[in-house]
Parts: sequence; structure tokens; C-alpha cells
Amino acid sequence: MSLDYDDLRRVRRDLHRHPEPAWREFYTTARIVDELETRPLDELYVGREVLGETRLSVPDDDELDEWFEQAREAGARADLLETLDGGFTGAVAVLRQGDYENGPTVGLRVDIDGLPVRESEDDTHCPAAEGFRSEHEGFMHACGHDAHATIGLGVLDAVAESEFEGTLKVFFQPGEELVAGGKPMTEGGHLDDVDYLLAVHVGLDHPTGEVVAGVSGFLAVHHFRAEFTGAPAHAGAKPEEGENAIQAMATAIGNLYGISRHSDGATRVNAGMAGGGTATNVIPEEAFVEGEVRGETTELMEYMHERAERVLRAAADMHGCEVDVSTEGEAPSAVSDDAVVDVVEGVAGGVTGVDSVLRSDDLGGSEDATYLMQHVQDRGGKAAYVGVGTDHPGGHHTSTFDVDEETIRIGVETLSRAIERIAAERP
Amino acid sequence: MSLDYDDLRRVRRDLHRHPEPAWREFYTTARIVDELETRPLDELYVGREVLGETRLSVPDDDELDEWFEQAREAGARADLLETLDGGFTGAVAVLRQGDYENGPTVGLRVDIDGLPVRESEDDTHCPAAEGFRSEHEGFMHACGHDAHATIGLGVLDAVAESEFEGTLKVFFQPGEELVAGGKPMTEGGHLDDVDYLLAVHVGLDHPTGEVVAGVSGFLAVHHFRAEFTGAPAHAGAKPEEGENAIQAMATAIGNLYGISRHSDGATRVNAGMAGGGTATNVIPEEAFVEGEVRGETTELMEYMHERAERVLRAAADMHGCEVDVSTEGEAPSAVSDDAVVDVVEGVAGGVTGVDSVLRSDDLGGSEDATYLMQHVQDRGGKAAYVGVGTDHPGGHHTSTFDVDEETIRIGVETLSRAIERIAAERP
Amino acid sequence: MSLDYDDLRRVRRDLHRHPEPAWREFYTTARIVDELETRPLDELYVGREVLGETRLSVPDDDELDEWFEQAREAGARADLLETLDGGFTGAVAVLRQGDYENGPTVGLRVDIDGLPVRESEDDTHCPAAEGFRSEHEGFMHACGHDAHATIGLGVLDAVAESEFEGTLKVFFQPGEELVAGGKPMTEGGHLDDVDYLLAVHVGLDHPTGEVVAGVSGFLAVHHFRAEFTGAPAHAGAKPEEGENAIQAMATAIGNLYGISRHSDGATRVNAGMAGGGTATNVIPEEAFVEGEVRGETTELMEYMHERAERVLRAAADMHGCEVDVSTEGEAPSAVSDDAVVDVVEGVAGGVTGVDSVLRSDDLGGSEDATYLMQHVQDRGGKAAYVGVGTDHPGGHHTSTFDVDEETIRIGVETLSRAIERIAAERP
Amino acid sequence: MSLDYDDLRRVRRDLHRHPEPAWREFYTTARIVDELETRPLDELYVGREVLGETRLSVPDDDELDEWFEQAREAGARADLLETLDGGFTGAVAVLRQGDYENGPTVGLRVDIDGLPVRESEDDTHCPAAEGFRSEHEGFMHACGHDAHATIGLGVLDAVAESEFEGTLKVFFQPGEELVAGGKPMTEGGHLDDVDYLLAVHVGLDHPTGEVVAGVSGFLAVHHFRAEFTGAPAHAGAKPEEGENAIQAMATAIGNLYGISRHSDGATRVNAGMAGGGTATNVIPEEAFVEGEVRGETTELMEYMHERAERVLRAAADMHGCEVDVSTEGEAPSAVSDDAVVDVVEGVAGGVTGVDSVLRSDDLGGSEDATYLMQHVQDRGGKAAYVGVGTDHPGGHHTSTFDVDEETIRIGVETLSRAIERIAAERP
Repeated sequence: MSLDYDDLRRVRRDLHRHPEPAWREFYTTARIVDELETRPLDELYVGREVLGETRLSVPDDDELDEWFEQAREAGARADLLETLDGGFTGAVAVLRQGDYENGPTVGLRVDIDGLPVRESEDDTHCPAAEGFRSEHEGFMHACGHDAHATIGLGVLDAVAESEFEGTLKVFFQPGEELVAGGKPMTEGGHLDDVDYLLAVHVGLDHPTGEVVAGVSGFLAVHHFRAEFTGAPAHAGAKPEEGENAIQAMATAIGNLYGISRHSDGATRVNAGMAGGGTATNVIPEEAFVEGEVRGETTELMEYMHERAERVLRAAADMHGCEVDVSTEGEAPSAVSDDAVVDVVEGVAGGVTGVDSVLRSDDLGGSEDATYLMQHVQDRGGKAAYVGVGTDHPGGHHTSTFDVDEETIRIGVETLSRAIERIAAERP
Repeated sequence: MSLDYDDLRRVRRDLHRHPEPAWREFYTTARIVDELETRPLDELYVGREVLGETRLSVPDDDELDEWFEQAREAGARADLLETLDGGFTGAVAVLRQGDYENGPTVGLRVDIDGLPVRESEDDTHCPAAEGFRSEHEGFMHACGHDAHATIGLGVLDAVAESEFEGTLKVFFQPGEELVAGGKPMTEGGHLDDVDYLLAVHVGLDHPTGEVVAGVSGFLAVHHFRAEFTGAPAHAGAKPEEGENAIQAMATAIGNLYGISRHSDGATRVNAGMAGGGTATNVIPEEAFVEGEVRGETTELMEYMHERAERVLRAAADMHGCEVDVSTEGEAPSAVSDDAVVDVVEGVAGGVTGVDSVLRSDDLGGSEDATYLMQHVQDRGGKAAYVGVGTDHPGGHHTSTFDVDEETIRIGVETLSRAIERIAAERP
Repeated sequence: MSLDYDDLRRVRRDLHRHPEPAWREFYTTARIVDELETRPLDELYVGREVLGETRLSVPDDDELDEWFEQAREAGARADLLETLDGGFTGAVAVLRQGDYENGPTVGLRVDIDGLPVRESEDDTHCPAAEGFRSEHEGFMHACGHDAHATIGLGVLDAVAESEFEGTLKVFFQPGEELVAGGKPMTEGGHLDDVDYLLAVHVGLDHPTGEVVAGVSGFLAVHHFRAEFTGAPAHAGAKPEEGENAIQAMATAIGNLYGISRHSDGATRVNAGMAGGGTATNVIPEEAFVEGEVRGETTELMEYMHERAERVLRAAADMHGCEVDVSTEGEAPSAVSDDAVVDVVEGVAGGVTGVDSVLRSDDLGGSEDATYLMQHVQDRGGKAAYVGVGTDHPGGHHTSTFDVDEETIRIGVETLSRAIERIAAERP
Repeated sequence: MSLDYDDLRRVRRDLHRHPEPAWREFYTTARIVDELETRPLDELYVGREVLGETRLSVPDDDELDEWFEQAREAGARADLLETLDGGFTGAVAVLRQGDYENGPTVGLRVDIDGLPVRESEDDTHCPAAEGFRSEHEGFMHACGHDAHATIGLGVLDAVAESEFEGTLKVFFQPGEELVAGGKPMTEGGHLDDVDYLLAVHVGLDHPTGEVVAGVSGFLAVHHFRAEFTGAPAHAGAKPEEGENAIQAMATAIGNLYGISRHSDGATRVNAGMAGGGTATNVIPEEAFVEGEVRGETTELMEYMHERAERVLRAAADMHGCEVDVSTEGEAPSAVSDDAVVDVVEGVAGGVTGVDSVLRSDDLGGSEDATYLMQHVQDRGGKAAYVGVGTDHPGGHHTSTFDVDEETIRIGVETLSRAIERIAAERP
């Protein structure tokens, strides 16, 4: 192979300088599409063409406009930006090769969004030292999705140069951090004919040179937001006229944490954000709780979700409030298929720089790639979630997270070889 | 009398255009002092000269600087602004007249701060129609303190032209809306020799032409803020490592409202504002509750305050959090003295335009004028809180509140005549 | 007058020896009726003849049977006991006198039930020293209802010897301590033609020789019981299968105390009894809260009652439980009519031994005489609640409460003279 | 073998007729000791001789006396009862055989207590049909401990007739149902020299003929009781003088269920019993919560226990109450040693009537045999918990639970053969 990794590194650093959170990946998508247009693809779908209707946690128009404008100012191509209007970000690239009609369709899913974390300015933090620190103050690629997008491009290049016969689809997915993009991408239809799906994540506390063939232990997650609306009143003069939204909120929080454990496996609940009220002398009219429930299986998550709804609604009733509960994100649980894990395990050891291959490891968190994996599996396909270690100085989601760029090469080679092998072996 | 009420109206409208909240009354104080300097006063004290040390709810330096700068841009005199640096706002004007050494010292307290309410732009709202709507977007004189300050100036004028023999002190007090300015103004020392104190408020649901000689029914109030600090943790991977500040907050809220009623009289409690957390997948490290307790008497307020502290501290302990509880404002209860009420009741009926004089009415809320009243009463003096009705289209603290400017004249005449009579009668 | 107060004292001491709680006043009613039958009455109604259908807090049959049997063993007349079967206790005595058809109907209400308090055995406690301590261990006349019933008999005697022309009805009411008997007695119909009603209570922290002409300040009260039913499950093996009644109960309790204060006046709430569960390793299937709400007015009590129901039902919903809420007792607020108070105030001073007459005093508690008072007032009649002081060594409802028997004479004379005067003056 | 299983059946049925709960196993212990005295034992220890000091959940003297007296009336030998005075129940039988000084010491633990469950009177319930239904109304051997004690006797017989060379100790343990007896029996010292320990349980949803060689999945458990003491007050007249123990209790319950899940494994919490208060018009002075926490490991149970204590103490502080928290029962987690499981698995298949041998199965509950197992393991010994299936018509702890008596034979044969093999192989 003769891939231009210097070029891929430049792309990654450009993405790193422009981190954009869910549904605001305007610069990011435009940059990726700009890159894709230089490659010999068969099909390319962008924005509304790749997303179904259930986009979760979409910010309001003002917020979208602000990021859209910022992307334009940062130099994103205007014609591409147009296709993303309204926060329809993300893309799907399709490469057909060889006797593709008799070959399988293999998908690769990479996510592309950034996080609301302020990036370190410290000299010891490579992006700061080498001049590609985030230009969007307060936001950062603190989970390596800049590397994931880059790996997606690299795999297209590598597969294009390989013996692969079949169809390769690379899914550049928005909104993973809010577990908000997996579902609409599944609904977009491009996954329906995928026979094998790979998803990839760098880091996860594994060092450079270590590959996990099949990450497991995804907790299914449901992310909700409950908005309580009561009635305001003067807290001194007419307290009885109020319907107290903060009291409803507090009762809800206390009882959310009190949802019973389940004997079938691990569950989680967290009222991660809450707030309300306008002044100390006004009975609070509005309050909210934003939280999540998780389960070791999708069923366990659904048990928690159902109980959480019951708590939220009863807490509102108890205090004469209305409550509006919305789903802000959701992802099922999923497992990697042994057949695909076998292939990854088989090829990874042969990649230069890989000195350790783990068959499996627990994620202990959530990921909306599980939507895509489950969709493929439900239709008879197979999937695996591959971990590619990277020496990351700071933890995921912290201000000093960074990616050892050697990881990009290891990821591209491991995945492209696995794709080639999958087409050859139809495991 | 031949006061220039047109001029007073211009002052009121200028103050109305520049509403400033607690400790940020830079333009307001400068404008008032500018006016005072044109009058034949004996003494004039400003900023640090009028305030003791217990200033509550002072905003941080950035916030102060922003408002300071805005006042300068709005045309406030630079030399006057200097004296207010650090948020030391407010002034005391002293007028000695006739055989003042044998006369009493009479105080008049007016408050000067605005509110965080966005003013109506509707044509039916007089300030909007007549061009003196707030220039500080999001802030508004929605409780008539612009009229109060103006009445303070007018009373100085009217008393100066009267037979009054004694000392008149007018207290232009900042920070009433947060019940934050009464205490430091009391500590400033200028009240120590006041024999009689009048405080004034316009409106209070009384129409133009109605005067309440002695408002009563002040609820003592304590305004607190509790900040809970726990420990963050990943809500999926390591929930047990967190110390959940939102859980502490919610437990505190539920139990604050559960503080027992008291057989000695009315009490109140309100967790008016609350919030916390940063992300749904992080066990919340920080949360706060800001609220108030009230009592029909100061003792009842203190009972509530003590129980509230107990709840807040135990809620923190329960969830492994620290809690920092601060006092953001406080005011005792107070009653108007019959002797002074008699005088106001006696003179008000003779003022042109007054067609109804009520001896008493319940406020049903809180006011930190009570600090000043109680201070005077504790030292053997007497006090009354006078209500001057005004046709106000919208309720207090709403975006369409306004003052019928005829009220300014009625207020000035009622109060100046009362002051003259007090000096004559020593009730 | 030449009443036989020694005889009345004997009656009182016999009642004192046989205290019986609500709906179990078998011996008590039989003894009273036995006494009444020796008097020249016009009509006498017992048990079902005096009670409407809304008897609250009636114990179960086993409990009733046990007390019924005990009454028989204590010597109650079998023929009288028969009429009380099923816990229909209480009586109404009617005396018509002079030109009664042109005279008014005056009612006197006395209550007859005892309390679940164990009586002191101390030598300094008169009933113990003089041999009439309670023979029903664990129960006691600790609130003077033995004296009330006796006063009812004495007033019949005194009025019979007086100039009174009209109809006198004495209501011997059961179940006051549970605020459970006032409502059914009102429904019994005998009050419908009452023009003037007097109710009486001894003690209330007033000494012998002091009379309160019109007690006021009754808090309206509602006494409820909520039973939560969920589903049991093994707490270790299948906790998720439970619907936790204790969790519902705890949430209800926390939020009952959090019902907002009301600006119209005093309110109260108390979850006085609670419990549930069967074993630590079983998710609790059943739990209950028994409590009360009060209000300075009936409306305030109803506000609290409505909010309490809302809390109870939502707490059940929140935890997947059913809840059954029953009313165990209730009494409205009431005020004494000035016209009747005037009469009592007028006559009391002339009674031997009375050295202090208060026009009014606050009860600060609840009483179901208010049902009877309100019923009379609603139909155009007038009522007053009279306090007759007594030196009581221990407080009401304590083991050393006792009545100075001189109080019986003072009560009889004060009330009979007031009744005579009412008939004469028709105030 | 020629064991007299008819005789053992008679013993079992006699024990079944006399179920006794924790620390009240007077008849039971006396009957067992009476049986033991007919056997050729080397040592026999009873009551205080077998228990250390940490007896948990011991009832009060009145309760103990009542059961003691009942045992006497049921025909228990008076001389034996004497040794059990004060609720020191249980026994340890020691059999030394062959060259025992060079053989191992093998322990067998059987538990002997009954449950507060009312036994079915239905004809289809064998003990009712065949005349050995519980004579202690409201109590029942609903978990098969009558069979366990009988198996203990049978194993002594079988081993006495076998080639076993070594020391056999059978521990007849009281108080298992409250996880209260394991700890003091461990402290009694007789376990200190045990090299191999077997514990046995019948049923556990396995049919007659199935044996589980090594039960696992014990949840460590901590059973606590918290008693809150506040201050009473009249709920209408002086609510503020109360310190509300029910409010503390309710806050505690809500927050106990809110203790965070742990990522290391399963945890449980249950406030299984709660109660308090005396009357609706009294602010409750006393209340309690009795509950349990569990963990997949002892460390997880301890995490839960520590958090629960924090909640209980803070809830008391919050409402001005004292709280007394006591440990009512506790058991660690434990695992069966493979070496011993191997032996049981090896011999079980050869026992007549055994048609299925499972190596392992999850208990999913708690057991204080784990104390004994852990004690032996901590000192270098090995242990296993053996399940012997029985066709039980009703579930454990229900009124129709029963034991197929064929199970007794299977249990005796399986355990005695295992003991013989252990001595032979020293695994």
C-alpha cells in the first residue's frame, strides 16, 4: 500500500481545529465531502440523503445558524454547506469494486462530532504545541472522532487499492456524543443492504499497538429531558396559587434514583442536569430534569425507561404541573458477532505496529453504533465493533485527550484488511 | 409651593431609561448626586460614606465593571462614578433648617434599584410610547423606584421651602429588590440620630389619589444560596465513585418545603431557583438552591432559617457533598408607629388629588426598609411606611408596570407636609 | 336551686371508672340512659335513633364485641345495651316545659368518650387516691368528658326546676376524640329545630372559677387514612417484580409536609402514623399513612385536604401501587355567635364561685361540636361554645388529668341560667 | 447401609409440628439433643457451649419466656431446656472414628429454625392431611430446616457405619432465617479445626433426584434496624415544637433506595419494614426502618451498608432526631471450593434415586452458612454448599411448602459418601 498518511494527518488536524457538536458538523461534513469528491467513488450521499426523520436533540434555529455561519467563515465550501441546511449533517460514501454484484456489501461506520470541552492550552498538549488546537473555544475533539473520520477516508483509499470485490459503504455519522445520530442514520436506508458492518473507536484506554477485535458490554441507553410547567405565584403573598415546578422536579429526581435494581443485570440512572425557577420570591413555574437510564440489555434499559416515565409523570401530577418528556437520544445494547470478530482478530496481528490483539473487552458505556449494528443483524447481517488503541495522555472527554496519529495508519490497515478478508471469506 | 414638577418628571424619566439592579446603580446614583449638588444641602454623602460592611449579593467584578462602563457610556459624570467604584452605590442628603439644633432629625428613605424584567415595547405602555423605555435591555424600573428617587429629590425641595425646623436626611438606598441594601445602609451610621423615619412606596395596588398612612404586615425574610459540591463520575462506568450534588439538592428541596408550620404565625419557604449538573452521563458534581424563608415576625423567620440550614447541611452530608450556604439578603419584620401614622393620616387628606386615606394595609411581602425602621425604633425613634397609590396598568414586577406621574406630586406633598408637622408636633 | 351534686359526683366517678373510646361507649351510654330514665323527660332517643349514617372510624366487629362484653360484665343494663349493638352509642334527651310551643328550642351538646391513655396510679392523682381510677386499663377519661356528661344531666335537672319555657334538648355525643361523632349526630335530625345551641368544655388551661363565654379559634380538621397496595417480591432475587408500597408511602409523607402554606391563614399537616412491610427481604406490598390536615377556616382545611389527596394518589401512581384513601374524621371551623356569647357572659358573673369571665379565648385545636354549631347556624340559629375552667393538675390527654368537681356545679349553673335567659330574651 | 429412615421421618415430622423461629428453637434443640444422646458420640455441645457473643436479633425476655414455656408444655425435656435458657439454642455433635488423629476434621452444617408463616390447612398439603401440621399457629417449617436437622442426624448414623476415619462435626445452627446465627456459631470455636465444611439445603426449585454439587451466587447481606427518636408535640397547637421522627424515616427511605448502583456488580436495598407515630394529632416522636442491603460480593454489601448508614444518620440530623442503628443480621458472600464440589459431584451420581447432578447453580439470595464457609476457608480449609432437590408443591416461605421425604435419604447418602470420600482423598 502506498497511502498518503501525511495527507490524512493534515485532514485530521484540520478537523481537530474545527470541532462541532451534534447536528452542527457543518465544517466537518463539508470538509469530509470535499475530500470524498477527490476520490473515485460510485455514489456519495450527503445530509438529508442519509438521514431518516428521527433526529434527536436538534438545537434550535438560532444555534444552528450560528454554527452554520461559523463554518462558512472558517472556509467551508458554500455549495456543500447549502446541502446541510437545517442541521442535516453526515455523509455516506459508496465504493463498488470488482465483481461487486456477486460480492457482499460491507459497511464501516465512523462518527464525526465533537464535544463541549475546552481544549488545553498547555505546551505538553500536542495540538496546542503544534498549532492545531480547537478554534471553536469551548469545544474540542476530545473523543477522537477527528481520527475516526480520517480513518474512514483512509479505509476508502486502502480498499480501493486492494483486491476487495464487493461494495464498501462508509457511514460518516453525526451526533454520536448525544446518542442522537445512530437512529436517523439507520432510518436513512443506506444500511438496508449491508451484509457486514464494522464500527471503530480509538483509544478506550488501550495503548497504541493494541487492537480489540470485538468490543462488547455496551449499555443500552435512553437519554430523556423532562420539562415541568406549573404556575407562578408570589412566594410571600400568595404561595398557594403556585403550582411548584421545582418541587415536582425534586420529587422526580429523588424517585428516579429510587427505581428498583433488576435481577437480570446491571442498570443505571442519572439525573445529570436539572434546574428551574426565576427568583427566590416566585413559586417556580418551570423546571427541568435531563437524564439517562441504561441497561446491560435493551430490555433492562426499557424497564428503566418505563419506570422513569412513571416517576416523571406522577411527580408532575403530585404538584399540579404538566410535564413534557422528550427523548434526546437512545441506543440499544449490541454484541459483536463471533464470525466478524474472528476475521478482525485474524488480520490484526499482521498489521505493522500491532503488538497485542484482544479478542474482546468491555466498553462499560454506551454508543449509538449499536443501532446500526442491530439493524444489520436484524436483517441477517453480521457486525463487530473494533477498538484501535492509542496512547492518549488525557482521558476521553477531558481537555488533554489526544490521539497518537500512528493509530490512524493501524486503524486503516486493520479495517481495510478485515474488509478484504470478509469479502473473500463471507464468514 | 411652586416646585418644578416638570423638571422632576424629566429626572424620573431619565432614571427610568437607565434601570440598574442591586449594587450596579452607577448611572442612577451619579444622576441623583448630580441633581443633589444643584440644591442647597448642608451635607452630602455618597457610596462608601453611606454603607456599612454587610453588603449582600454583591456581583463579581466582571459584572460590576460591565455596568460601570455602561453608566459611563450613558453619560454619567466620571468624577461621581469614581466614588462608586466597587459597587458602593447610594447616597444620603442632609438639609438643616431653622433652629435645627432644637428640632428633630427626620429621615426619608427611598430606594433606587431596578429589576431584571424586560420592558414592554407595546404602544399602550407609556414609556414605550413616549420614548423613555429602558435602554438597558432586559432590565426595567418595574417597581417604581425611579419615582421613589424622584420623590426624594422633590421632598428636599418642598421641605426647603417650608417652615420645617430641624434636620432632614434623605436616604437613597440601593439594592432593595434583593433585600440586600437595607442592612449596610443601617450600618452606615447616618441613621443613628434619626428621631423619625418615613419610608415610601408607590402603587401596591392602590390607585392614584389613595394614600396608606401606615403600611404593615411586612414578612421578615431571609434569602439564602446553598452550593453543593460532590464528586463527578461517569454515570455508566463508575457511578459509585460519584457524590451526587443534584441528589443532595433534590433532597434538600423536598425537605425545605417540609419545614413545620409554626403556631405563632405565618411562615413561608420557597426554593425559588435551583440547578446543577453538566451532562447526562456524569454524576453531577455541583448544584445549588437559592431560596428564601419568611416569617410574620423576625423570630418566625429565624425559626425557618435555622431549620432550613439544618436541612441543607444534612442533605449534603447524606450524599457525601460539601455545602456552602450564604446569606444573599435579609430583612426583619417591622410595624409602623401609631404616632407617625397619625400625622400622615392627618395631612394626607389635605393634599390636592388625594381622595382616599387608609390608615393601614397589609403588604404581605418583604422590604428591607424594615431594617432602617427597626434601627430607628430600637434607638427610641419612631417610623412609618407610607403607601402612595398610583394607577399602574401592569402589576409590580411585570413588563407593563408604570407610574402615573401625578403620584410624584402627591407623594412629595404628603411626605413634606408630614415632615413639617412632625417637626412641629414631635408626636 | 337544690340539686343533688353529691349524686352527680357519684355519676361522674362511675363514668370515670369506665372510660370507653369512640363507638365503644356502651357502659357510658347505658349508665347515662339509666340516669335519664329517672328524670321527667318528654322524649328520649338512644343509639340508632340519634345517629345518621356517616359514622367515621368505627372499629371492627371483634373490637366492638369485646367492649360490648366488657360493658355487660361491668354491670350495664342488658336491655339498654341491646339498643347500642353495632356501636350505635349516644343519646338525646328532650324536656318540654311551660308554654314550650311558643318558646325556643335550646340545645346543649356534651361529649362522652374516653381516650387511650393509661391513668396514673400515683397517690397524688385523686381518682387513684379516692378509688375511682379507670377500670379499663390503658384507657382514661383524660379530657373531662365524664364531667361533660354529668353536666348534661345536671342541666336537665336545673332547667326542670327553673322558669324556662321552651324545649331543651341535651345531646350526649359519642366519638369526639376522633372528630368522628359530630357529623352523624348532625345527620340524626334532632338538631334541625334547634334555635340556640350551647356546647361546653371544662378546663382548657383555665382554672376553677373562670368561665370563657365564647371559645373560638377552632381549626377545621380532616383526618384521613391512606392504604397503599403494591406487589410483593423477593428483595434479593426479583426486586424488579415488586411494586413498593413503602416507597410510595415515604414519597407521600415527604410531599404531604411540603404542601404549600396558604396566605389566607393558618394550616397544618401531620402524617401522625405510618407503617408497612412484613420482612426485610420482601419488597413491601402494603403500607399506610394516617394523618390530618387542618385550617383556620373550613376552606383552608379543604385546600389542604385536596392537595393531600393529590399527593397520596400521585405517590401511589409513581410506585405502581393502588391507594385507598378514607376519611376517618372531620370537623369544620366555627365561631360563636355574639348574641349567645353576650348571654353567657351576662349570667356567668352571677354564679357563685365564678371570679373571672373571659368573653373569648382561642382553642388552637379541633372539635367536632363545630358540626353541630354550623348546622344550627346554617338553619338560622345561633350557637356558642362555653369553656368552664377547672384546676386540672395534669394537661389534657395526660395520665394525671383530673377535674375539680366544683366545676360541675359551676358548669350546671352557668349553662342552665344561660338557657333560661336565652328563652326569656330570644337574643 | 441399614439406616432406619422410618425413624428419621418420625423425627422430621415431630420437628415439623413444632416450628420455632430464631433463638426460640427450644423444643427443636431439646428434641435434637435427645436424639443425639442415643447415638455413640464422642462429644456433644449445647447452647452457650456452641455460640459466641454476637447473637443478632435476639427477642426480648418476654418473648423468649413464652416460647420456652411452650416448649416445656409440648414435652421438651426439662433438663435440656435449662441449658438453653436465654435463647442459647443450637448444638454441635462430634464423632471421632478410626485413626481420627491422622484424619481430617469434616464439618456439616444444618440449620434448624422455622418461619412466621401460617401453615396451610388444605387437604392437599401433606402435613395437614397426615397429621403433622404445625402446632404453633402462625409459624411453620416453610423452608425445610426440619429436613436439614434430620439429615444431620442421619449423616451421623451413616458415617458411623462407614469406613470414615477422622472427625465429623455436625453443626445444628439456629437463626438462619434472620441471617443471625451464622456469626455466633462461627465465634463458638468448634469450627476452628474444621478442614472441610459441607452445608446443605433441600429444594431451591430443584426436583427430587437432582443434586447441585456446589451452590454459588450468594449475595452478601446486611440486615439493619434504625430507630428514630424525635420530640412529640400537638400537631394543631404547637407543631413547631416537634422533631418529627416519621419525616426523618420517610426521608431516609426515599434516599436509601437512591443509593447509587455499583459498577463492580449487583447490589440490593430494601426498606422492608417501617412504621411510627401514635396519633394523627401528635407530631411523631418515634419511627423505625428495618431493612437490608446486599451485594454480589462482601465488598459490595459493605459499600451499600456504609452508604445506608450515611443516609440514616443524615435523615435523623435533618429532622432533629436521634437515630439508633443496629445490626440485626449479616452474612458475607462465599464460593464453593472446586475440590469439594468435585467430590460431591463424583459421589452424587451413584446414590440411588439421583438422576441429575448439576455442578453449580445460583442461589440469588443470602445464607449465613457463608460465615461458616468463609471462616473455614480463611483458615486454609475448603467448603461447599450442596443442594438436594425435593419436589416441593409450594415455593419456599409459602404456606404449602413441603419436603418429599425421599430427599432425606438422598441427602444423607450423598453427604455421608462425600464425607467418606473427602477423608479418603483429602482433596
